[in-house]
Amino acid sequence: MTEGRDIRLSKAAKLVGGELHGPDATVYGFCSLDVPHPGAVAFVERLGRFDPAAEPRPSGLIVPRLIDGLDGTGQIVVKNPRLAFVRLMQFFHPAARVEDDFRHASAVIATDAVIGEPSHIGPGCVIEPGAVIGAGTRISAQAYIGEDVRIGEECLLHPGVKILHGVQIGDRCIIGAGTVIGSDGFGFVADGEEILKVPQVGTVLIGNDVEIGANCSIDRAALDATLIGDMTKIDNLVQVGHNVRIGRRVRIAAQCGFAGGASVGDDALFAGQVGVAPAVNIGNRAMAGAQAGVTHAVYDGQVVSGYPAREHRRQLMVEAACNRLPELIKKFERLIDEKGSGE
Amino acid sequence: MTEGRDIRLSKAAKLVGGELHGPDATVYGFCSLDVPHPGAVAFVERLGRFDPAAEPRPSGLIVPRLIDGLDGTGQIVVKNPRLAFVRLMQFFHPAARVEDDFRHASAVIATDAVIGEPSHIGPGCVIEPGAVIGAGTRISAQAYIGEDVRIGEECLLHPGVKILHGVQIGDRCIIGAGTVIGSDGFGFVADGEEILKVPQVGTVLIGNDVEIGANCSIDRAALDATLIGDMTKIDNLVQVGHNVRIGRRVRIAAQCGFAGGASVGDDALFAGQVGVAPAVNIGNRAMAGAQAGVTHAVYDGQVVSGYPAREHRRQLMVEAACNRLPELIKKFERLIDEKGSGE
Amino acid sequence: MTEGRDIRLSKAAKLVGGELHGPDATVYGFCSLDVPHPGAVAFVERLGRFDPAAEPRPSGLIVPRLIDGLDGTGQIVVKNPRLAFVRLMQFFHPAARVEDDFRHASAVIATDAVIGEPSHIGPGCVIEPGAVIGAGTRISAQAYIGEDVRIGEECLLHPGVKILHGVQIGDRCIIGAGTVIGSDGFGFVADGEEILKVPQVGTVLIGNDVEIGANCSIDRAALDATLIGDMTKIDNLVQVGHNVRIGRRVRIAAQCGFAGGASVGDDALFAGQVGVAPAVNIGNRAMAGAQAGVTHAVYDGQVVSGYPAREHRRQLMVEAACNRLPELIKKFERLIDEKGSGE
Repeated sequence: MTEGRDIRLSKAAKLVGGELHGPDATVYGFCSLDVPHPGAVAFVERLGRFDPAAEPRPSGLIVPRLIDGLDGTGQIVVKNPRLAFVRLMQFFHPAARVEDDFRHASAVIATDAVIGEPSHIGPGCVIEPGAVIGAGTRISAQAYIGEDVRIGEECLLHPGVKILHGVQIGDRCIIGAGTVIGSDGFGFVADGEEILKVPQVGTVLIGNDVEIGANCSIDRAALDATLIGDMTKIDNLVQVGHNVRIGRRVRIAAQCGFAGGASVGDDALFAGQVGVAPAVNIGNRAMAGAQAGVTHAVYDGQVVSGYPAREHRRQLMVEAACNRLPELIKKFERLIDEKGSGE
Repeated sequence: MTEGRDIRLSKAAKLVGGELHGPDATVYGFCSLDVPHPGAVAFVERLGRFDPAAEPRPSGLIVPRLIDGLDGTGQIVVKNPRLAFVRLMQFFHPAARVEDDFRHASAVIATDAVIGEPSHIGPGCVIEPGAVIGAGTRISAQAYIGEDVRIGEECLLHPGVKILHGVQIGDRCIIGAGTVIGSDGFGFVADGEEILKVPQVGTVLIGNDVEIGANCSIDRAALDATLIGDMTKIDNLVQVGHNVRIGRRVRIAAQCGFAGGASVGDDALFAGQVGVAPAVNIGNRAMAGAQAGVTHAVYDGQVVSGYPAREHRRQLMVEAACNRLPELIKKFERLIDEKGSGE
Repeated sequence: MTEGRDIRLSKAAKLVGGELHGPDATVYGFCSLDVPHPGAVAFVERLGRFDPAAEPRPSGLIVPRLIDGLDGTGQIVVKNPRLAFVRLMQFFHPAARVEDDFRHASAVIATDAVIGEPSHIGPGCVIEPGAVIGAGTRISAQAYIGEDVRIGEECLLHPGVKILHGVQIGDRCIIGAGTVIGSDGFGFVADGEEILKVPQVGTVLIGNDVEIGANCSIDRAALDATLIGDMTKIDNLVQVGHNVRIGRRVRIAAQCGFAGGASVGDDALFAGQVGVAPAVNIGNRAMAGAQAGVTHAVYDGQVVSGYPAREHRRQLMVEAACNRLPELIKKFERLIDEKGSGE
């Protein structure tokens, strides 16, 4: 059980807009059904996968409809149990707010940096000249905020984040530990034996409510800006190349890579380890399956997978066909043989 | 040659349980057969790949059986030359022990952190309140140890490691530079136009003798704990999602990714860049080939490869069949044509 | 527009060895044709993709041949517009030179480290004993330079770079934020139930003019050295295993991984997310397509793609053939049926 504040189930039901059936117990935290805990509340997404005989049983369950034979357990009936559970978790574990203004003595803060109040600057941080940081933002230990960086209000930067010069980040963003934003794009031009570096003089603009995971790298544009839209969520170890444009409410799982100049519409979804080729356009609400290699444009709402990425249903047909191939070839060769011997 | 302490070959033979033939020279370090060095010891794994005429020749060779015509070279005969060589390397290069208690003046250490003695806290480290660190552990420069983290005895944390709040690590673990343990899992729930963050309130529990490479990210669980079992070894840039459970003595090569809720048994092996889909179960002693996309359960001892991952032998058959396909299609089309023209 | 110094187009033309046609305006920076800006200079690579009617129009254009009907716009005609543009960018944005010797007070610098002058050591850096750093080199904030590391002249290390003990880096190298060089190779030997760590006692040697991106990991050799040749360019999140040897002028896109002992010749190219298997040899001027899984040797000049990587033209044929397979199988089955019913 993960402990939080204690709450009566009747109050929890009110919070999530559900209806309580059974005893109005007090619960002290959350648990999963894998590791159930009396005194906690859990949620049941699919009734068919819930075992009413399992012991111990949580004191509270959030359910899509009432389960029979659970006397002694308070059930909160809601339409979307997962959503209600998350709402309740957010009540128990509200996002940590910065209440008191704090600058650790070991932080190196440029005198002309403009830092809203209250805000939190942890130990070992470096804030370079011209940086602007909004009120309510927490810069955890050992973070680096480069020259002229702008970070909005109520952001949370985890330890060791590196935001390089000129990058702009909106409000309420979360940046994972070790992530680098504003690294140079990978741009070179061959000149005979020499390889010239293309100066990467653009920047990165990140909207509001964006979350980026740990140890990612988001490159600055060669010219203009690499863009990440409002409410987009990016997992760990993701690469975003220079001049990539990612829309709003996009979700990108771990280890995806977007090559330079790729663009992604709103509400798109990427499973893990997807690669997107340079300058490829991906539409709104598009989806890419895990490890897809997206080499061509994906239209609005299209679902693709495989390498090279195709329409997902087609990819499944091709996979199934390939899987039958060894036996089909034997059959085919027998046919050829018969035909040969029959002639 | 990599220098170490000097040792007589007779003593080396005793250390590795082998038998010395030829001169009892003194050696000063190690070399590979690619860059051979007189005065050093090398090992020969496969006799067929050893060239007895190559110059210069190391003073000592660890061999599976005596090689003729190597007068002047001491040969140590053992069953497993690689293992004997590693044992000898460990003698020459013992794991660095913390002998003297050390706290660099620049380290920021919470007054209520409990740190065993002797231990080493390098420059620029940050140790937050409630952290517990065992005796014999070395925390290299610029590491971050969050609130209530527990680290066992005789661990080695390389520079810039970030261990976030509440994570627990056993004894004798090695964590590579830049690695983040305890980053938030990637959990969101859509609520109309809004995307709610699922609070990630679980933790990460790491066993004893675990090694994790550089720039990895190991997510904390949403609830409960992400688990990594005793003696498991993880290479660089690996992603371990929330609530993943990895067993004991598992070896995971670089850039693998395990999506949320995946589980891995004991003694499994993963080649590089493998992806494992959410909640997939992988058995004991299972193996996954490089770049495999594991979308379904893998049973104990099964070897899989390809995308989507299949039984490896089947995958090889399918690959071979696909590789023949362009010519087979021509043949097939000729057959159809003949049939057409024959009608 | 990205601002820089102002320059007359006639002078710009001279700098890039081109010929100016039209008005000799003064420009103040650069722009792309996606976000055109009066007062800036842009380049046109392919005339067919340039819209002469687009507004606003940059004051200067670098073009492969004169474009008609662009009165009022200065055109600089050169053979290779991209190269000329990059040369001009380098004029506007010269690589930042270290002019004044600087050691931030918070940097922890071993007294016996040898540091050329002028050089720049940023806040929070740690320089260990025996390190040697050349003149003109900038070590940005929070970097770690281990014992006996040697870094040449005029290098740029971005924030949070970790160079571990004994690594050697040449002149004019750029290392991206968060990158780790000299992490332990992934070497273990099973001994019954135990897994022994192979001491990684080699090092990493990096040539001159090498650029490495953000959050990479470059492992030290088990014995001898991991090698990266002059002028090689490596993107973000790339894994280079122990004892890998990479030649000169190689370009490696993001998220590639090279397993232990792989070798790469000069002038090779790797698109993103490529994996190279252990000890595989890749020739000079070879190319690997995105996500390729290179399991066998690639000869000089060969282009490979796919998994397992094949000759690229063959891979395209196999892909095309597989894509036709679902329909071909139907046809084949009809043929078998007819044959059956015809008997």
